[in-house]
Amino acid sequence: VSVLLLCRAEPLERWHDAIVQALPSERVYTRAQDTNAAQIEVVIADAPPRESLGRFANLRLIQSLWMGVDGWLNDATVPTSVPLARMLDPSMVTAMIESATAHVLHAHLHHDDMRRQQSERTWREFFNPLARERRVGILGMGNLGAAVARALTRLGFRVNAWSRAQKPIDGVRWFGTLDEFLSASEIVVCLLPLTGATRGIANAKFFAAMRADSVFINLGRGAHVIEDDLLAALDRGKPRHAILDVFANEPLPSEHAFWSHPRITVTPHSASMANPVTAAAFVAENVRRLRAGEALLGAVDRDAGY
Amino acid sequence: VSVLLLCRAEPLERWHDAIVQALPSERVYTRAQDTNAAQIEVVIADAPPRESLGRFANLRLIQSLWMGVDGWLNDATVPTSVPLARMLDPSMVTAMIESATAHVLHAHLHHDDMRRQQSERTWREFFNPLARERRVGILGMGNLGAAVARALTRLGFRVNAWSRAQKPIDGVRWFGTLDEFLSASEIVVCLLPLTGATRGIANAKFFAAMRADSVFINLGRGAHVIEDDLLAALDRGKPRHAILDVFANEPLPSEHAFWSHPRITVTPHSASMANPVTAAAFVAENVRRLRAGEALLGAVDRDAGY
Repeated sequence: VSVLLLCRAEPLERWHDAIVQALPSERVYTRAQDTNAAQIEVVIADAPPRESLGRFANLRLIQSLWMGVDGWLNDATVPTSVPLARMLDPSMVTAMIESATAHVLHAHLHHDDMRRQQSERTWREFFNPLARERRVGILGMGNLGAAVARALTRLGFRVNAWSRAQKPIDGVRWFGTLDEFLSASEIVVCLLPLTGATRGIANAKFFAAMRADSVFINLGRGAHVIEDDLLAALDRGKPRHAILDVFANEPLPSEHAFWSHPRITVTPHSASMANPVTAAAFVAENVRRLRAGEALLGAVDRDAGY
Repeated sequence: VSVLLLCRAEPLERWHDAIVQALPSERVYTRAQDTNAAQIEVVIADAPPRESLGRFANLRLIQSLWMGVDGWLNDATVPTSVPLARMLDPSMVTAMIESATAHVLHAHLHHDDMRRQQSERTWREFFNPLARERRVGILGMGNLGAAVARALTRLGFRVNAWSRAQKPIDGVRWFGTLDEFLSASEIVVCLLPLTGATRGIANAKFFAAMRADSVFINLGRGAHVIEDDLLAALDRGKPRHAILDVFANEPLPSEHAFWSHPRITVTPHSASMANPVTAAAFVAENVRRLRAGEALLGAVDRDAGY
């Protein structure tokens, strides 16, 4: 199998050695012009390359380096006849658990308000409830959402879930309607895939249904949020604060209102990065399955959108 | 038993009803002048009252509402013949686990650097290691330190400990020398009691032994830190950041340099507040033990200083 490794957003050096070492019996190319297009059977890439993949007539697998594949599904030049696999790196799940836990604890303990007090040189003590008195709502019960829900439960939080399909998790309360979910959750974490049904889900109606003194945390995709609706909602105090790792346009433009908003925390799309070593092992397993004619891991259902 | 409940720093209303309900067969006074001094057998207070306790000739127990009793031990008007008990509210341990975990994750994930980037409108992604690749050092293996060490181990962190007495905890590496402990820890959390041996422990020599890119978190007492030494150490980048919940003078004076320092996070001594309901249950158990002639919980060893 000849493999073409392409990076559009991430530095190629971050991936190259790990992929080469994980695929010792394959030839790994990093520039399309070095190859005969007919050779290439596997493309491994963070996002759809600028040049169409259509010219690789013998392509049998597109392996995403990212868990979110909305970029691939929204690109009309990507051949839909070729199987597309998401990255299911166990390190990414662990990293997301760590980031989500950090942000939820920050919101739970009012560290956002303490930070604002610091900027005003104001000393006012906080008598916080314990995690067991705090309800955290997770939007999305996929790989990441379910893992984060379990981790927060172990820390003592009361966890609510909203998702398309009901997914029973011990100690997690599932809601079928968004309004009831939002009115029962003081901290809301978005871990949804980006699909036609979830694009723009965090809109004016959504924020109006949130609780006073709530915090909204977006670790999904920027396009889940209608940014102007969020700004207007923060002005009304629902939510009281937003923590955003993802944005409609990334990098977030330097003139964007989010940067200097006192009730928005901006993190630079860093909540969960794949680990090249463990992610390369996942890629190698999928290449082995391709050779052996076995079912791929992380195979994307193009209709569901993930 | 007649009980006198006094608050000097905390609002009395926070405690009154819970204490009265937990001690249904005792008379609870809140003002010394309402009582006959000879009646009072138990004083429950957050800190030593301004007026000496010496006039309560029949005093048999001083029950602190706080876990740290350095205020009592450093006050020469407190009768040393009367047993002094610390507050060992299980809710305080849980609260400290939550706060310490929040701050350690914040440091681990470089959320301090992300916050500074936000203030500069700079987008630079972070590729963070996982908790299992991060070494967190805990100073102090008392009730709180040991509980925090266990919680961080469960989250995957590699945990180091430094304490006066060796205390074996599964998965925690104990160090006998401070220099070795500091050079092996990327995030250092102070949960020491304040004693003659620990006062000013975080001084120039201590910070010089820390690692580059390390973070110092003080959840113990303000007097553990030589504040000018910390400011000088931050200028040298060791540690890169400090998160401080406690200060030599509280409330932190509004002109203090810490408020506006870009590498210091100030939280208003709120990491672990006793929960009046569970703390009152602890107080009631000690009053019961006093009546029954049983050993008190949280009895302070005045020589050890905690």
